[in-house]
Amino acid sequence: MEILCKRILEEGRALSSTVLKVDSFLNHQVDPKLMYEIGTDFKNYFKDRGITKIFTIESSGIAPTVMTAMQMDLPMIILKKQRGKNLDGDVYQTTVHSFTKGSDYELTLSKKYITKEDNILIIDDFLANGEAALGAARLIEEAGAKVEGIGIVIEKSFQPGHDMIMSKGYDLFSLARISKLEEGLIEFVK
Amino acid sequence: MEILCKRILEEGRALSSTVLKVDSFLNHQVDPKLMYEIGTDFKNYFKDRGITKIFTIESSGIAPTVMTAMQMDLPMIILKKQRGKNLDGDVYQTTVHSFTKGSDYELTLSKKYITKEDNILIIDDFLANGEAALGAARLIEEAGAKVEGIGIVIEKSFQPGHDMIMSKGYDLFSLARISKLEEGLIEFVK
Repeated sequence: MEILCKRILEEGRALSSTVLKVDSFLNHQVDPKLMYEIGTDFKNYFKDRGITKIFTIESSGIAPTVMTAMQMDLPMIILKKQRGKNLDGDVYQTTVHSFTKGSDYELTLSKKYITKEDNILIIDDFLANGEAALGAARLIEEAGAKVEGIGIVIEKSFQPGHDMIMSKGYDLFSLARISKLEEGLIEFVK
Repeated sequence: MEILCKRILEEGRALSSTVLKVDSFLNHQVDPKLMYEIGTDFKNYFKDRGITKIFTIESSGIAPTVMTAMQMDLPMIILKKQRGKNLDGDVYQTTVHSFTKGSDYELTLSKKYITKEDNILIIDDFLANGEAALGAARLIEEAGAKVEGIGIVIEKSFQPGHDMIMSKGYDLFSLARISKLEEGLIEFVK
């Protein structure tokens, strides 16, 4: 997605070989029109796939996902990051490790919002180690539903997430694919 | 907002005299078209007020706020809930107490995304005790900017937040105003 790569080059800041800050349009300040265009791209790729619901993970995935869900006329489900296990039995939970924060959380989905018949698109803002997206996929499959695809706004292709998702056979569609980061340098996959 | 009140009556669940669950269309599963209509209502009320940016608090405020920001052609800024103080000096922070979670967090705003010239609309999903909205207002005023208004999707008018915000002279616009909750009962302000 050309306009997204242009914004990443103009406004993104590579702080190290793994950290890219895009907090002027995606994570802290958010450009709603860009989010809408991102939604259009996801819709164009996934529109004929019989998707029934779109899942995302709080909180930076919400803005691009709600714009996609509106254009595809589908509900969005926000998976919650809870600190502890919920013992009620009315939720699906799976433990996810956040490399960014160096801690674990329980990715949580109410059983009310998924059925075996669901065919689900997962959308998230970043793909790095793949922990969040694969955690979402585990919850969906535990519920007996299908992961139809995974849409990512910015993929750091040199980190393990890309290959882990591909090795599980999921259809991964990333709008911007970064091949290399260094302080002050951002390169895209050719 | 009639369509919102209808959804609250049809799908909302009053769990106690203070807790209203609306997780089928606002907090967990989200209806993007309703979020768009909420955005239209906020735009119609605040459109001639010279607003420069829209602030919200992660994470349930993001979906209605990004829909408002798109229709008003303004950037959205997501205030972050951090656990500890940031000592870098590049952020504004204020301590907010969450009655829901029974704990405190540091509401955090990068200094890059606010100037003294800003005229800001705050939007959030719920107003109860007013802690989050008033925390956002403190950050804005600490930066020397102006709080032009506060937009709330669902106000629990019988809790202290409404009066606290009014007593500070802010223009508060709530789309649904609930006067009373009891297990199984939801009443709106007439």
